[in-house]
Amino acid sequence: MNAPVISFSRRLRVSPFELRSLEGSKSASVYNHLVLPTCYESLEADYWHLREHVQLWDVACQVQVEVQGPDAAEFVEYLTPRDVSRCQVGQCIYTPLIDEAAGIINDPLVLRLAEDRFWISLSDSDVLLWAKGLALGKGFDVRVFDPDVFPMSIQGPKSADLLSRVLGDSIRELKFFRFVETEIAGTPVVVARTGWSGQGGYEIYLQEPDAGVTLWDTLAAAGEDLQVRVGCPNLIERIESGLLSFGNDMTLANNPLEAGLDRFFKLGKSADYLGRAALEAIAEEGVKNRLVKLVIEGEPIANPRTVYTVQGESGENIGTVTSAVYSPRLCCNIGLGYLPVSYCDEGKAAIVLTPQGPRELRIANNDWSS
Amino acid sequence: MNAPVISFSRRLRVSPFELRSLEGSKSASVYNHLVLPTCYESLEADYWHLREHVQLWDVACQVQVEVQGPDAAEFVEYLTPRDVSRCQVGQCIYTPLIDEAAGIINDPLVLRLAEDRFWISLSDSDVLLWAKGLALGKGFDVRVFDPDVFPMSIQGPKSADLLSRVLGDSIRELKFFRFVETEIAGTPVVVARTGWSGQGGYEIYLQEPDAGVTLWDTLAAAGEDLQVRVGCPNLIERIESGLLSFGNDMTLANNPLEAGLDRFFKLGKSADYLGRAALEAIAEEGVKNRLVKLVIEGEPIANPRTVYTVQGESGENIGTVTSAVYSPRLCCNIGLGYLPVSYCDEGKAAIVLTPQGPRELRIANNDWSS
Repeated sequence: MNAPVISFSRRLRVSPFELRSLEGSKSASVYNHLVLPTCYESLEADYWHLREHVQLWDVACQVQVEVQGPDAAEFVEYLTPRDVSRCQVGQCIYTPLIDEAAGIINDPLVLRLAEDRFWISLSDSDVLLWAKGLALGKGFDVRVFDPDVFPMSIQGPKSADLLSRVLGDSIRELKFFRFVETEIAGTPVVVARTGWSGQGGYEIYLQEPDAGVTLWDTLAAAGEDLQVRVGCPNLIERIESGLLSFGNDMTLANNPLEAGLDRFFKLGKSADYLGRAALEAIAEEGVKNRLVKLVIEGEPIANPRTVYTVQGESGENIGTVTSAVYSPRLCCNIGLGYLPVSYCDEGKAAIVLTPQGPRELRIANNDWSS
Repeated sequence: MNAPVISFSRRLRVSPFELRSLEGSKSASVYNHLVLPTCYESLEADYWHLREHVQLWDVACQVQVEVQGPDAAEFVEYLTPRDVSRCQVGQCIYTPLIDEAAGIINDPLVLRLAEDRFWISLSDSDVLLWAKGLALGKGFDVRVFDPDVFPMSIQGPKSADLLSRVLGDSIRELKFFRFVETEIAGTPVVVARTGWSGQGGYEIYLQEPDAGVTLWDTLAAAGEDLQVRVGCPNLIERIESGLLSFGNDMTLANNPLEAGLDRFFKLGKSADYLGRAALEAIAEEGVKNRLVKLVIEGEPIANPRTVYTVQGESGENIGTVTSAVYSPRLCCNIGLGYLPVSYCDEGKAAIVLTPQGPRELRIANNDWSS
């Protein structure tokens, strides 16, 4: 399929880092109305570099919705089955948002900046409109808006080495999913120990867009001997690390239970939330399908344009593969997909229809070791 | 600035026409999570062809939100200052949606399919979430969802010649902004006399995605001697025709009055709608800035990445150019932008700061003739 180049206009919002992140970017997508690079040198070269060194990512596309006001905590609770009351100021929590039918609206990080002030750091859907609509409709006393906040990410095993050169060794003590408000190169930033890879790292929330290039260059200069370079979320790494992509591995048509997001929350929080009845009914009945890690035999395959169909023993369609890639480290095709719970036991096999023909698929265990 | 190629994944939804529309597409954008081609041969060649012949456009990115149910009419009224009660079944109306502060949420076409059933045919924002949130919050008795509906467009002066070969001469009688439900190549379609160019044409709403390529090929075959070819919304043509682009020429930060959208509706409809108080206050006070057509002197300039700043006589910033392009027919740079009302008289001049330096800018009249 022909892949046209991206044409820019004001409608694709500007990242404060794009002067740095577009340079050398071979391919990209659009995410929340911003450009998100997907490859620099090659998917594999980017992958190995990310696992060995440290990268700077332009993830300004992880846009924020800010919720402020007397009902802020109650309103954020209303958006999710996760218990937000347990989220302290300075903490971030992974927070699936659901609709009235328990369909997934988005799977953001929520940062609690104050008792009555939150950033919802989004995957790819206009939650600003969702949250505004609900808040207006239900009459919550909150202000919901998109603040001038632009995240970049430092990811890779040398992330702490790099960032400590700029912020001092105390940044090594920052706990997972905690953040601090500080300053880099004279500009105020929020630094969180989070990021969309399994290699460790930080996300830095810039609030003065004009300082974006200076912030970037400061980090790049500090890490020169660490082989820091520009990078981006990497398809191989994120599948290996079991990170789900909203829009790919889950959509509004999925509920958080079948997507396995219930490992992040306990059903039954006391606060009111939208979709509770639907979600509890699904839990009671038991999910029919479940998202699993899987291995696909044979030559390297491409990530599906949509999904690959999975067939059972008698050729009936039983499920889908939603993401797949060849892992040069594991030396096999790995992927994520939905299968009936009866098929979800480790080692179980089925057939997946790929553009290169049918292939055997096997349910993997959590670290892909069998 | 480097322009990476678009990388595809399931998150970029599939258009039923993409097997045809991606072929030969040199550049593209992403719009409502779908790919929207922006250029084939060249911006100018595409432009001249569109003005002389007929083109097939993949505009599946104009996604629909369907509103059904007892409160459907009341709910659609609630979303807009336009009087929806005057929209008959079989009619489509251009319908700015606004928020509580009268900011523009989207500027869709609304198609009334039945007294209690509407399609909202969107520009680039997730109105599904906005409408669902508001309907849930306010307790409207409606179903709000994204139906399997995928528009393509036939645009250009030979559009009626082409479509009448497929649907018979009666389609020539279809009035502007009216639609009929019919069938092409065995698949049910809604055909509307609408489209995002000033060259005339139709939009065809496909409901069976698997029939997309057949529909496309049927139209392409019927128009071979009319020099039909694949095309897309054209920057030159749409600015010449004064068509505003949501995200470019207006955003949530603009109200419909300053954007001049009040030529499509009268303030003061009897039905209740969100943002009425804010919009009426703006109307009463009078807008400070207004969107105008303008001409920019000198060599051809590029469309702005965001906006170009406009300065007044004493060098103070007074406004912005939001879209601009060189028109090979008018032999000058034309554009759209916001200026203080005191500057909005035809012929009035100011300075616009372009990447090629300051240029004189002049307010144009409606048909760019002075």
